[in-house]
Amino acid sequence: MTIKQIADELGVHPSTVSRALNPATRGLIGKATTERIEQAAKKLGYYPNAAAASLRTGRSKLIGVFLPDITNPVFSPVLSSIAEVISGAGFATIVADVGNDGRNQSKMMFELVARRVEGLILATVSRNDSLVQQCISEGLPVVLVNRAESKMRVSSVTSDDAYGMRLAIEHLHALGHRRIGHLAGPQNLSTGYLRNKGFHDAVTSLDFDPADTPVVECSAYTRQAGAAAMKSLLEQNADITAVAASNDLVALGAYGALQDAGLKVPDDISVVGHNDMPLVDMVSPPLTTIRISHRELGREAARLLMSEINQEGSGRRSIVLAPELVVRNSTRQI
Amino acid sequence: MTIKQIADELGVHPSTVSRALNPATRGLIGKATTERIEQAAKKLGYYPNAAAASLRTGRSKLIGVFLPDITNPVFSPVLSSIAEVISGAGFATIVADVGNDGRNQSKMMFELVARRVEGLILATVSRNDSLVQQCISEGLPVVLVNRAESKMRVSSVTSDDAYGMRLAIEHLHALGHRRIGHLAGPQNLSTGYLRNKGFHDAVTSLDFDPADTPVVECSAYTRQAGAAAMKSLLEQNADITAVAASNDLVALGAYGALQDAGLKVPDDISVVGHNDMPLVDMVSPPLTTIRISHRELGREAARLLMSEINQEGSGRRSIVLAPELVVRNSTRQI
Repeated sequence: MTIKQIADELGVHPSTVSRALNPATRGLIGKATTERIEQAAKKLGYYPNAAAASLRTGRSKLIGVFLPDITNPVFSPVLSSIAEVISGAGFATIVADVGNDGRNQSKMMFELVARRVEGLILATVSRNDSLVQQCISEGLPVVLVNRAESKMRVSSVTSDDAYGMRLAIEHLHALGHRRIGHLAGPQNLSTGYLRNKGFHDAVTSLDFDPADTPVVECSAYTRQAGAAAMKSLLEQNADITAVAASNDLVALGAYGALQDAGLKVPDDISVVGHNDMPLVDMVSPPLTTIRISHRELGREAARLLMSEINQEGSGRRSIVLAPELVVRNSTRQI
Repeated sequence: MTIKQIADELGVHPSTVSRALNPATRGLIGKATTERIEQAAKKLGYYPNAAAASLRTGRSKLIGVFLPDITNPVFSPVLSSIAEVISGAGFATIVADVGNDGRNQSKMMFELVARRVEGLILATVSRNDSLVQQCISEGLPVVLVNRAESKMRVSSVTSDDAYGMRLAIEHLHALGHRRIGHLAGPQNLSTGYLRNKGFHDAVTSLDFDPADTPVVECSAYTRQAGAAAMKSLLEQNADITAVAASNDLVALGAYGALQDAGLKVPDDISVVGHNDMPLVDMVSPPLTTIRISHRELGREAARLLMSEINQEGSGRRSIVLAPELVVRNSTRQI
């Protein structure tokens, strides 16, 4: 069954059929015609042979998304909005939960290259990421989302992490806090590094005493690592009145450690998160945090990748979105 | 660059190279040899041409997963464990967030068939699902996860939804509750239907007065729908002392509506959820719920699909996993 046979059946030109059945060009054809063609294609049992088409055109209409941890709730809206844009362009999305192991990431990249994937969105990169160089060597279009590299070798879409942390510190400062700890994220990741830098710059410009702004680095963005870091921070600096966490999972881990230490949030200590991931409005107490529009991160990354694939792009770019402070009940005046 | 050239370079047989580079057969080759071959393949810039291989073998090594709502946190562990099993078998996973619209689902299915996808895992089905018949007509292996059909046309992996609800009701009964409302899920979905049936069977066998066990159906598994249903339940039956929700998001919606009505959980009213999705241990109060092992659901579904694809299966089967009660602080003795 071919496009020509469908065209004959309906008395239209084959190129009309071809356009109507291609999501990327469907908009060029009237809605009624598109529906007639779709019904005929379905009735006649036609579907394009993508493997043959891929050999002929060199195009698979596939893109890959690498996530460091699919069970981290912040990635759901990123993935959802990527899939929305990608599928609107007639592409399908292969999702790979590759963790943080470079060898594993590299292996998966080569498997996708073997499937003729046309581009990758990486939510996994460290500040010095070997995978990015490998993709460049393969000539594979790549866009980074949420985390960026130190060098700007490819396009990226991130939140303004340093500015977000400044919002958190200014909020705590306005509430009267003068001894604030920071639960820093992993320093090999741009988010961890830039939020830590934002913390340092903010307390410096607000004339905090360096001894009153202790920092402990978490081994990962998890509740467990957040709890361990909070415990260590309390042991060293029992007199802090507030904590700025590098992300929401870390903040929730801190909640647990503070409860274990007999301290109440926000009565004894204020806590600020980072991300505004789903459900932190419902935890006890509801978390004051820095809201990042993860849907927007995903959408912009997918658009950038599509324009690179279609060679409409005007070169590398780094898009930085402004986050905002969301005040809930985990912070209070002292 | 071909397999033969790599074999010549290393002085091994081409079939050894082929096996070492195929994740499904890699285990047959010694680890040291596999590493030498992988390094040589990388150095020599070899990767198999999947489009050509797909035409030759008729195999794409791709499977698809259809989710109704990628932002619902219960699907993260399902997806993560599916990807783990699938990628261990040398396949890649295309994820499609298809919503509940049959036309959209059907269109996406045909797009994946055009890409020679070898099988589908559907987390989307309603009790009478037209997509399942379409897949059967296409000869496409399909496994259902989390939700099943009324007819058993294909294999499925679900939680024992009726039994889970029985656990919830027996828990509330043991705490002395005798007037219990049910926030039912959508009745066109097996989860909504079977949990409602489980509620009905449990209150009947425990000799509740039917007038004391009101049911309101939610329009969707969301916080918004849960809040609306809770409000309606309170208006009709202000004297209930407990609520069994059809899922955790619905229970969290009920929390909001109860707060608006000036009622405290669990002092004025006890609430039980269903799923034990991430973070419900941290909400206020921590939610008593029915724990489903979503990782196990995903793993079993992926294994079933792989054995159907490899034709090792012994026919359709429905695997039903037993859930368990997790008691936290949203329920209390009256």
